[in-house]
Amino acid sequence: MAEIIEPRRLKGFRDFLPQEELSRRTAVAELETALRMHGFVPIDTPILEYADVLLGKGGGDTDKQVYRFTDHGDRDVAMRFDLTVPFARYMAAYGRELPLPFKRYHIAKVWRGENTQRGRYREFMQCDFDIVGIDNETADLEILLLINACFQVLGIENMGVEYSHRGVFNAFLEKRDLAGKTADVLRTVDKLAKIGSQGVRELLVNACGSTDAADEILAFITKEDDFDATVAKLESLAGRSEGTERIRRIRDHLQSLGLSDRFTLNPAITRGLDYYTGLVYETFLTEMEELGSVCSGGRYNDLASLYTKDQYAGVGASIGIDRLMTALSESGETGRTPPVPAVLIMMLDKNLTAHYHSIAARLRDAGLSCEVYPDPDKKLGAQFKFAEKKGIPAAVICGEDEYSTQTVIVKDLRTRESFEDLALEQAAGKAAEIVEGAS
Amino acid sequence: MAEIIEPRRLKGFRDFLPQEELSRRTAVAELETALRMHGFVPIDTPILEYADVLLGKGGGDTDKQVYRFTDHGDRDVAMRFDLTVPFARYMAAYGRELPLPFKRYHIAKVWRGENTQRGRYREFMQCDFDIVGIDNETADLEILLLINACFQVLGIENMGVEYSHRGVFNAFLEKRDLAGKTADVLRTVDKLAKIGSQGVRELLVNACGSTDAADEILAFITKEDDFDATVAKLESLAGRSEGTERIRRIRDHLQSLGLSDRFTLNPAITRGLDYYTGLVYETFLTEMEELGSVCSGGRYNDLASLYTKDQYAGVGASIGIDRLMTALSESGETGRTPPVPAVLIMMLDKNLTAHYHSIAARLRDAGLSCEVYPDPDKKLGAQFKFAEKKGIPAAVICGEDEYSTQTVIVKDLRTRESFEDLALEQAAGKAAEIVEGAS
Repeated sequence: MAEIIEPRRLKGFRDFLPQEELSRRTAVAELETALRMHGFVPIDTPILEYADVLLGKGGGDTDKQVYRFTDHGDRDVAMRFDLTVPFARYMAAYGRELPLPFKRYHIAKVWRGENTQRGRYREFMQCDFDIVGIDNETADLEILLLINACFQVLGIENMGVEYSHRGVFNAFLEKRDLAGKTADVLRTVDKLAKIGSQGVRELLVNACGSTDAADEILAFITKEDDFDATVAKLESLAGRSEGTERIRRIRDHLQSLGLSDRFTLNPAITRGLDYYTGLVYETFLTEMEELGSVCSGGRYNDLASLYTKDQYAGVGASIGIDRLMTALSESGETGRTPPVPAVLIMMLDKNLTAHYHSIAARLRDAGLSCEVYPDPDKKLGAQFKFAEKKGIPAAVICGEDEYSTQTVIVKDLRTRESFEDLALEQAAGKAAEIVEGAS
Repeated sequence: MAEIIEPRRLKGFRDFLPQEELSRRTAVAELETALRMHGFVPIDTPILEYADVLLGKGGGDTDKQVYRFTDHGDRDVAMRFDLTVPFARYMAAYGRELPLPFKRYHIAKVWRGENTQRGRYREFMQCDFDIVGIDNETADLEILLLINACFQVLGIENMGVEYSHRGVFNAFLEKRDLAGKTADVLRTVDKLAKIGSQGVRELLVNACGSTDAADEILAFITKEDDFDATVAKLESLAGRSEGTERIRRIRDHLQSLGLSDRFTLNPAITRGLDYYTGLVYETFLTEMEELGSVCSGGRYNDLASLYTKDQYAGVGASIGIDRLMTALSESGETGRTPPVPAVLIMMLDKNLTAHYHSIAARLRDAGLSCEVYPDPDKKLGAQFKFAEKKGIPAAVICGEDEYSTQTVIVKDLRTRESFEDLALEQAAGKAAEIVEGAS
């Protein structure tokens, strides 16, 4: 006999048990519905790409985390680490044949060899959506509305989007002769939630070499009491601009739509990434702030500059599906998936196997998921236990007597109540009632 | 300015344009519905595994095609090349806590560095479903019924499943003292469709070293005029057995269910893989036989023997989704996806932006996907062109006049007919009518 290999799994990678995967796939399906309802269409790209295409020249921090290797054909390849870079390549390749503005979504896995000790996974699923080929407030607004719609469709009401404007922040740094320090400043400000304003101040003093500059930056990123005061402060520090105008108009639209309490102007939101140029935002779950942002994004003015001279301005956001699902499951908020199956057709007499399957087909036509218990050698007791273990709420029983009268018995497996002498149409209705009551 | 990187893609890997991806995701959603309706639940596993776990010791033909490399942590890892091996590891890890018989499905991508010249892709999506933890005719039947249901839900009526029994074939080889040649014989018989019976005969003569043996094998794998004659021949050559009994009983059930014309007993179906032990099958599209099997599977008696001493007998099948989609698209049979979006809300006056979004929300509540045209600087003509390019069937128009009376105009973009003075509820109904008529 061959030696047994231990069925071990790589650190940072997960198996999904049925209930977890059902929750995740249900969430993905709900997100897809919301996205398509808003006119967004799906795309897909390979998980493997040429390493130089994925990483550009040089690379930076991400590189160390990228799964990169030489394939059979001696090609230097890498697994995608986000959905933005492949999308940039995609737009460079197909942008001229796509109808602009182009609204796409992409729900797929990405891989990063991150330190797993911080509870991070190395394989995780993201949902990205963008409007590309336009730069205006309408598109900005639409992404914000869509973020709201996505969380609504997931049943998450306790959320808030915090936004600011990177162009306004840049203008402020320019004014203060700090444009050369932008990268350092952004990286530091991004740590505000983690290390607090005193910590940020110290780092800013180091980065800018001046306590005055540090204090001014701190003043800039501090939220005032309300929207008007905050935007007025931004204008006093950075000057009035198309950026602050756009912030005001978007706020007006959100107010007209009765949604302004979900969206807060917070100048501390800057997003670490270089490529943002306009509105930027992060999304927090009100009762799980410590989780960090579960949906971030913003406006950029040149998506695909690595691959083409065609300029694609756009705006978009990304939902960290796996992080969100983990948080929801830990807080017990993912239980909305319907039971699979909803009905068990008991196996009383194996000569009736075909009949059981035609009953099953009838129930499925009525929208009920069901299965025929597959082992004719098991007693009813074992079959009921099986149903209980799987959380199946209803059973259909049909022995010789019922077969001869073309009826069945429907049983509510929680209350143990039985309903006899039901014709098949009645049985479907009764089972649906039981399933409805159970979920 | 940085040098432009050519946005090239790896050979054998594909990008999916929106319409293709919409078709694929629609097909996947339809398959999932069918699978859950039959009581199958989804699982997921990582795409990367330890190479020894994925490949066992030694390996065989598959090895050369596997994407395998050393990761940052100096681990020997590989990308999955099918969904069966990860499932075997999964059952070894969780089999004792799952309710048996366990019905799972897994829809995911796999990777093989195959020769792309034969029109094969290196990244492709599969849909696997299995019933594990039981060995009987009911489970065998259920997988056959489910194959049929999957193709039905995809709208494919022109299909047929050809099946046989590997245990019966093995018994026959045993009887003829050819058990030692099983692997060679299976590999050869599998080529029947490709090289014809004369070609197979020559190879069999080589493999078995005898023309008599070759002719007997050829006789065995040749289909007779009808089921009864074929099964009688199998019994005369291999002996009557639990295997031939099961073939007969399953055929009875299929007949009772009125499905026997979709399922043909064909002893030439043997499946090349070692691990099958019972019923085996392949599925062909009636008008595209040359495509080969689009859904294959069968019964195995020990799924996870590489990883555990626990024995998991099971039965299952695998649909090659990407191959199927490519074939359908080439034959023009994938056009059933609804238009996304179905309705364009025209941008006449940017001061009405919020109003347009509230109209959009109302239409979505009525089940219509829609988008607000995002560029207030574009004339109506350009907006209509945009709708045409995207195949949007209906438009909603609302200028100052309509806004003041809280009405809209709905326009059928194919017939160019306009419907004026509609209240929003009426507008949703009219738009739905237009969309319905267009699809």
